[in-house]
Amino acid sequence: MRHTLAILVENRFGELARIVGLFGARGYNIESLTVAPTLERQISRVTLVTSGDDERVEQIIKQLDKQIRVLSVTDLTVTDHVERELALIHVSAEAGLRRQEVLNLVDVFRAKVIDISETGLLIEATGNRAKVSALLRLLGGFGIQEMVRAGTVAIGRLPSAATEAENDSAEVAFGR
Amino acid sequence: MRHTLAILVENRFGELARIVGLFGARGYNIESLTVAPTLERQISRVTLVTSGDDERVEQIIKQLDKQIRVLSVTDLTVTDHVERELALIHVSAEAGLRRQEVLNLVDVFRAKVIDISETGLLIEATGNRAKVSALLRLLGGFGIQEMVRAGTVAIGRLPSAATEAENDSAEVAFGR
Repeated sequence: MRHTLAILVENRFGELARIVGLFGARGYNIESLTVAPTLERQISRVTLVTSGDDERVEQIIKQLDKQIRVLSVTDLTVTDHVERELALIHVSAEAGLRRQEVLNLVDVFRAKVIDISETGLLIEATGNRAKVSALLRLLGGFGIQEMVRAGTVAIGRLPSAATEAENDSAEVAFGR
Repeated sequence: MRHTLAILVENRFGELARIVGLFGARGYNIESLTVAPTLERQISRVTLVTSGDDERVEQIIKQLDKQIRVLSVTDLTVTDHVERELALIHVSAEAGLRRQEVLNLVDVFRAKVIDISETGLLIEATGNRAKVSALLRLLGGFGIQEMVRAGTVAIGRLPSAATEAENDSAEVAFGR
């Protein structure tokens, strides 16, 4: 099963290497990883997506928790959470019908055009993994020149079950 | 100086640990890091932001380039490029004037509300580092419950100088 872990860690040289090394040494695959500052200067937040059976993932969470500089490890997979990815995509599209088709996709997926030239568009897209992958698949037909995807980030949902279902269906309907 | 590196690397256990370890061992600071799949199955792209004088960064690029599984290293800082970050922000805001003020910020910054409850909003924001930081600063006044930021991703600008200036000013005007 795919597990999304949120790890709060002290911001020190070598600390990230230790965490990443822990996965590598045990043969755990890191599907995506992103590290960035938090609101507290000395603390970084690592969002890490790994896959493996639940027991093995539980073991690695225990290992992570034992690290002195690791402040907390949360397996977001077992809680209600939102995941998002960011992708920047350079698509070939000269002015004309093809470009219009690309712009229609941008519109449906609520993406943004952040740069434009005679021969191409630079698109910024956000969404869950499935949505970003679907957009990439559709844009693939037009010719993707370059693409960069940020690792998944995840956060707990707001404590209000009533609004969730509505939001989820809105996501489907508008491709948000 | 701040340097943004794009590293293409073979997707193997331990490879990421080796790259990150190279920075830690030499006392180089990793400000942000993000790793995600590319369109080619066996290759991942690492976007890494580090700071240090140009000579030291050049040294580490050479070191990275020597790694067998590293396919290419590009210092995007010396080229014309676009940087983007993604942040998910849980802000306290009950219905009423304060919530309206938060929604106005979301609007000006072209962010999105992705979840809502009686007491809070979950906001998805993208932009360059300065823009995301500015939004976080402004939302700070309302009370940020939780925040997760993805590491910077970067991609080369389209080869068309004519449109750049226009885009840049649009970014300022609309807070894009």
